[in-house]
Amino acid sequence: MLSGYLILKNIRTTQRLLRNFSSDTKFFKVEVVSSNRKTPLQPQRKSIAPRFEKKTRQKISDYLKQMATPEIEAQLAPLRAAVKEYGDLIRDLKAKQAPKIDIDKAVVELKARKKLLEETEIALAPKEASFDRLKLEDLLKRRFFYDQSFAIYGGVTGLYDFGPMGCALKANMLQQWRKHFILEEGMLEVDCTSLTPEPVLKASGHVDRFADWMVKDTKNGECFRADHLIKNSIEKLMNDKKVSAEVKKDGEDVLARLEGFDDKDMHEVITRFKFKSPITGNDLTEPIAFNLMFPTQIGPTGDFKAFLRPETAQGIFVNFKRLLEFNQGKLPFAAAQIGLGFRNEISPRQGLIRVREFTMCEIEHFVDPEDKRFPKFAKVADEKLVLFSACNQLDGAPAREVAIGEAVANKTVANETLGYYMARCHQFLMKVGIDGRRLRFRQHLSNEMAHYAQDCWDAEILTSYGWIECVGNADRACYDLQQHYKATNVKLVAEKKLPEPVDVDIVEAQANMALLGKKYKKEAKKIQTALQQLTSEQVTAIEQELLAKKLYNLDINGEKFELAPDLVNIKKYSKKIHVQEITPSVIEPSYGIGRIMYALLEHSFRQREGDEQRTFLAFKPLVAPIKCSILPISANDTLVPVMDAVKEELSHYELSYKVDDSSGTIGRRYARTDEIGIPFGITVDFESGKTTPYTVTIRHAETMSQIRLEVSELGRLISDLNIRLFDSVNPRYAQQLLEIEMFTFCSLDIVDEKATKASEMFLGQLYNDQKWRSFGFVTNTGVRMILVLDATSAASLKDQEIRLIFKRFHGHYCNTISNPFYEIGTPMQSKWLDEGIRDLYSTSD
Amino acid sequence: MLSGYLILKNIRTTQRLLRNFSSDTKFFKVEVVSSNRKTPLQPQRKSIAPRFEKKTRQKISDYLKQMATPEIEAQLAPLRAAVKEYGDLIRDLKAKQAPKIDIDKAVVELKARKKLLEETEIALAPKEASFDRLKLEDLLKRRFFYDQSFAIYGGVTGLYDFGPMGCALKANMLQQWRKHFILEEGMLEVDCTSLTPEPVLKASGHVDRFADWMVKDTKNGECFRADHLIKNSIEKLMNDKKVSAEVKKDGEDVLARLEGFDDKDMHEVITRFKFKSPITGNDLTEPIAFNLMFPTQIGPTGDFKAFLRPETAQGIFVNFKRLLEFNQGKLPFAAAQIGLGFRNEISPRQGLIRVREFTMCEIEHFVDPEDKRFPKFAKVADEKLVLFSACNQLDGAPAREVAIGEAVANKTVANETLGYYMARCHQFLMKVGIDGRRLRFRQHLSNEMAHYAQDCWDAEILTSYGWIECVGNADRACYDLQQHYKATNVKLVAEKKLPEPVDVDIVEAQANMALLGKKYKKEAKKIQTALQQLTSEQVTAIEQELLAKKLYNLDINGEKFELAPDLVNIKKYSKKIHVQEITPSVIEPSYGIGRIMYALLEHSFRQREGDEQRTFLAFKPLVAPIKCSILPISANDTLVPVMDAVKEELSHYELSYKVDDSSGTIGRRYARTDEIGIPFGITVDFESGKTTPYTVTIRHAETMSQIRLEVSELGRLISDLNIRLFDSVNPRYAQQLLEIEMFTFCSLDIVDEKATKASEMFLGQLYNDQKWRSFGFVTNTGVRMILVLDATSAASLKDQEIRLIFKRFHGHYCNTISNPFYEIGTPMQSKWLDEGIRDLYSTSD
Repeated sequence: MLSGYLILKNIRTTQRLLRNFSSDTKFFKVEVVSSNRKTPLQPQRKSIAPRFEKKTRQKISDYLKQMATPEIEAQLAPLRAAVKEYGDLIRDLKAKQAPKIDIDKAVVELKARKKLLEETEIALAPKEASFDRLKLEDLLKRRFFYDQSFAIYGGVTGLYDFGPMGCALKANMLQQWRKHFILEEGMLEVDCTSLTPEPVLKASGHVDRFADWMVKDTKNGECFRADHLIKNSIEKLMNDKKVSAEVKKDGEDVLARLEGFDDKDMHEVITRFKFKSPITGNDLTEPIAFNLMFPTQIGPTGDFKAFLRPETAQGIFVNFKRLLEFNQGKLPFAAAQIGLGFRNEISPRQGLIRVREFTMCEIEHFVDPEDKRFPKFAKVADEKLVLFSACNQLDGAPAREVAIGEAVANKTVANETLGYYMARCHQFLMKVGIDGRRLRFRQHLSNEMAHYAQDCWDAEILTSYGWIECVGNADRACYDLQQHYKATNVKLVAEKKLPEPVDVDIVEAQANMALLGKKYKKEAKKIQTALQQLTSEQVTAIEQELLAKKLYNLDINGEKFELAPDLVNIKKYSKKIHVQEITPSVIEPSYGIGRIMYALLEHSFRQREGDEQRTFLAFKPLVAPIKCSILPISANDTLVPVMDAVKEELSHYELSYKVDDSSGTIGRRYARTDEIGIPFGITVDFESGKTTPYTVTIRHAETMSQIRLEVSELGRLISDLNIRLFDSVNPRYAQQLLEIEMFTFCSLDIVDEKATKASEMFLGQLYNDQKWRSFGFVTNTGVRMILVLDATSAASLKDQEIRLIFKRFHGHYCNTISNPFYEIGTPMQSKWLDEGIRDLYSTSD
Repeated sequence: MLSGYLILKNIRTTQRLLRNFSSDTKFFKVEVVSSNRKTPLQPQRKSIAPRFEKKTRQKISDYLKQMATPEIEAQLAPLRAAVKEYGDLIRDLKAKQAPKIDIDKAVVELKARKKLLEETEIALAPKEASFDRLKLEDLLKRRFFYDQSFAIYGGVTGLYDFGPMGCALKANMLQQWRKHFILEEGMLEVDCTSLTPEPVLKASGHVDRFADWMVKDTKNGECFRADHLIKNSIEKLMNDKKVSAEVKKDGEDVLARLEGFDDKDMHEVITRFKFKSPITGNDLTEPIAFNLMFPTQIGPTGDFKAFLRPETAQGIFVNFKRLLEFNQGKLPFAAAQIGLGFRNEISPRQGLIRVREFTMCEIEHFVDPEDKRFPKFAKVADEKLVLFSACNQLDGAPAREVAIGEAVANKTVANETLGYYMARCHQFLMKVGIDGRRLRFRQHLSNEMAHYAQDCWDAEILTSYGWIECVGNADRACYDLQQHYKATNVKLVAEKKLPEPVDVDIVEAQANMALLGKKYKKEAKKIQTALQQLTSEQVTAIEQELLAKKLYNLDINGEKFELAPDLVNIKKYSKKIHVQEITPSVIEPSYGIGRIMYALLEHSFRQREGDEQRTFLAFKPLVAPIKCSILPISANDTLVPVMDAVKEELSHYELSYKVDDSSGTIGRRYARTDEIGIPFGITVDFESGKTTPYTVTIRHAETMSQIRLEVSELGRLISDLNIRLFDSVNPRYAQQLLEIEMFTFCSLDIVDEKATKASEMFLGQLYNDQKWRSFGFVTNTGVRMILVLDATSAASLKDQEIRLIFKRFHGHYCNTISNPFYEIGTPMQSKWLDEGIRDLYSTSD
């Protein structure tokens, strides 16, 4: 089917702009563009704001675009084979149930080979010629998107303050996130505290396991992250001419394996290479685990230990019961939280990618572990994602674009719920403006995942720092809820109605608290809790042991308690149950907003062709910190009424704007507003106020295309470009509509030019670029019609066919306006017209 | 002038609803309400959802309403006189420059008398009979607005988690705040870190002064906030029958003065009364200062001390230079921040009012200290605020309602900028739904203010805990910027262009670093900085002392450094300056969102008359967590298409909704949705799907009034009620429009009833309540017109005059629809009509 766009311009209609999308062909639009302009075309205006005179095409990133060329693939082939060799070896070892140490060794080698493959892949990919991180960083700092915190006090690494632009960008992203997930999916949002008591994080495993290895200067106690120290020290070796080739080879080997190293491996390397503190040259300690949580105390006594939360998820888990109740006891449901997380990084680098305080958005979707289907999955099943599965990784194969429905069907992705969230994640990232060609979903290898996780896919975005994990999508099974249950003895379960009641035999171990209290004092309570938490099978085992040995050794987290038969009563009874208690599984999508924002800044960064010094940010209007700039061409008072009219028009449509009335040339001011990513610049010039209604020019920053229009047209045009179109779920569609809108405006004047010379109503082709072609038609009463077709469709149609489309439409149009109740300038809402428009296609196709 | 409302209902028009406000009379509206109903009035429908049958009027809080009755004032008079006595004494002491200790003593007594006055005032005010805090707290906990954090771990005092309802309420309030201040005032928003290095908070004074007094159990170290301990211990004494009347009198006296006590006073009381630990009975230590900031460390070494910020303001001050630059170097400008603050309260109580982690919104408005005028001040000058000035407080007088323009003019409020922010604060609080009668602005007495502050007005809201400070509006002069300058030697100043260049003589003290380094080593840098920061006058003084004594003792924060003449070079020169460097003054409005939210919850809490158990929350739709509920009358499948249509209609208008399809009776489900403050309930019943277009009933929770309407009318009606009207700056106007809207809908069916019996076009009065009266008119072609007038206007008009209004309007209406280009069902946009409508009033008035 054709995708087309038809516009009617009638200069005699009233000042209202009205439009109507026909119901099912989204790419078709009938518009009566109105205007009170007495002089539709004044050649002298063109000099001030010519339509599309500067037709500079911005560079489009070519990262990875040609990744799959035969030449590149030929270079990668041996590296792929090398990875596959070890992938196969590991599969084999696992199948043979080989000792863990052998598997671990093979995994370290596998990772080394994968890393080499990936680095080569990135190195071979055609670079975006113009990307220069220093230039981006300079822009971000200069225009205060963000900067190091407390800079006047010398700054603190890993802490960043967001200025007005960064703050607005972040707020817009968060608003979209809230809309895309919480509102559209009906999630339960919570807002929990950052301060978290120690026992909560003990139960979640963070107190014991949330740590990095560090080494200390043995003399002054200075700390270094062990892996960073090794990496930097080896890189220094590599550049040292005095170092032998053999040692360099060894160092290279270590670098490749470093990611898989544990403390012993790192200590071995530091000792073998005799690495010292890079600052003092002193010896270093063995690697010690440093917990990454910020410690503090609650209250004045100093004995209520707490931490700043390292993630927001635990706040949701501890509120599970209330949330389930809020959801009227029903599964599945999702809770979400937007809030701060804190990680006391040992030596943070890489700007926004590794910081000590950050905003994260987390979802915990609670679901029956035996039924992880998702009702709305069919809606996303056709969505194509670039998946880099564990299997691909073990095979040394590249990531592949796969429909998520297919991936779930063939079990690449564990279940529908996880797949659904991956698809929604993809949609969100595209919506805010991440370059789809620099986005992939990488599956965790089984050894990367926590032991309880069932499947995990990270959304990774390619930046100048390499592939960065920005979103984690994990199926965490029921680990977290069970841990908090163990710690508190509060059941965190949902009830599932059984198809029919069932009789079950229950075996319980009840503590004899009187005797237990005598023997174990304070510990008695703990023993009672442990006994209550035992399953029927475990109680039966205890019963047997008590019968046999008259003694049972109860193990509570490593502590042993001797229980004689008189301390425990075993109770057995039968019970009819109607519901089954289940601990829900949790699917957890977790978004690092700062990282996504940084990636977005890199992907939006542009340099003007031919003037590499003019850098700017091409944001989607949806997330742009400010939507419009208002630029008076001079400080002349005569421009004030026009400025006020523009402000009023924009405020009416709730479009944010920034007035730049500084004295710079208009070009310099454009450059300044382009830098902060304002997508639309509205220029008020000396022509603006000469006629009423006032006219201004609007300039699209990314393409630098300009059109002149009336002030009263501004709000509608920009909100269409900004909000309605860009809000649609499919970002490609939105982008296309933006292009069409700009393209159509650009065709408008050409129609007028051609019309004056034309001898017939059909004007032929008006305008074309690589993607679109427009055709014109003007009626004897002066109504202009423009048809915009995509270039391929246009190429497949003969002139005669296009002429026919216009003729048919003209007929329908005449019928509509002949209706005595139709008033020129109001929307054409006739059903017949809609049907007629649909037929334009089907019959001419 | 009349305020009226005219509605035209034409059942034959198409399904679009169109309306048009006439330009200058906001209370007048012409509407062609359309409908495709074939059967406009089906009597059987009335039984399901009768219009306004249950006309229960909700109770309105009467707090303080009759505060000023002569009876109450008579009782308060002696207390007022007692306050004034000490107010006058203090003024007198100050005038005589009496010793500080005498003034302090008088202030303690003044505070005691003020407290007694205020408590009596609140006690005498008629109570809202139905308010019961326990019931509110039960509701908030049960429906998970918020609850204590980590409850399954035993909970942490002073930490609260917000559930889905609380979270949405808070998010809506924050969104309104951002819109009301940041967007409407064009502020620069920043987002700084919570983690703050010690030196920053040292400079701001928090490390030294942000503390409460606590006493410790001498044996087990348990801590108590000293003033709380004294208060509780005395209250216990009071209830002890064995305690003598004399001791009780003494205790009462202490209680009254407690607020003004310092550590010595409190120690004296604890010793005199022999107070012990209430838990162990052990002795207590002397009061010690406990800093209320949460300490932590950044990085692994343990020597980078930091705190969680106690306020967000410092983040703005340390970024002043960047923000000024962002504002192109110009003053005034305002920066704002929404974020977390942390206070390690010793023993927090009072729910959301005193918490350890909270969201705050702060504005720092930077302004020329010599020109604190505000360009937009005229816009708010007529706004009336309840001001409780320092003068009123010293006089024992009550708070007074004053126009802010008058208060600034007579210097009650220090300057326009401060006054503007107070007025905007008042608007914001009214907008979100605070009861204006329970809101006052209390000025700080000079001894309450920080020494640098110039004026400070707290917005205090009356709750069941008494008057609670929810917003501070302070003129902090240039204290903060100067403190950070002193600490960092980075100039935090703005440049002000001088009217003409000025020659100034500059005297500078330059450190001789070579010699200074030898003598003072590391300290040399500090001395250099201190010398650079001296003013010309200070340098001249040093020069004279160096000449006279050959030695100068430089004092840096209490440390003394001997400077011989060779260590300092005094340099003098003349310089022509074009700009003057000024340290801006800061006006700081600071909002505690949690406190406002708690006050809002109390003010929104209602009990149904006649059924005190049915409690609910009457939120303004603007902040309501969910706007609509959808309630199917049964689980019957036939209702599904209607439900889907309703959902689609609401989603189209972006109105949030909650479906309650549980099995309870409709009454129980109404009660459930009322509880969580959903303002509109949409009921889908068996009539709903019987005819197309579908109809449903909509019920306004607060008034329980119900109307039946078509699904396609829902979105427009609710968004009008919710968003457009409630978004308007003047909340009283919005409330009125809501009432009119509901009232008009209620009159609609009556028109139909009367029309069938009527013999003439004018139908007379349709409906009335205390505030509004409606009149009807029906044309021979069946167009219905409804005129709604406020009751007083209506009373002043004769029947004949109302008849005339209708006749005139009918004439204008006929002219408009006779226009051949007008299509029935489209908006009537004729200028003539607008003018005619204006004339309806002027000529009949």
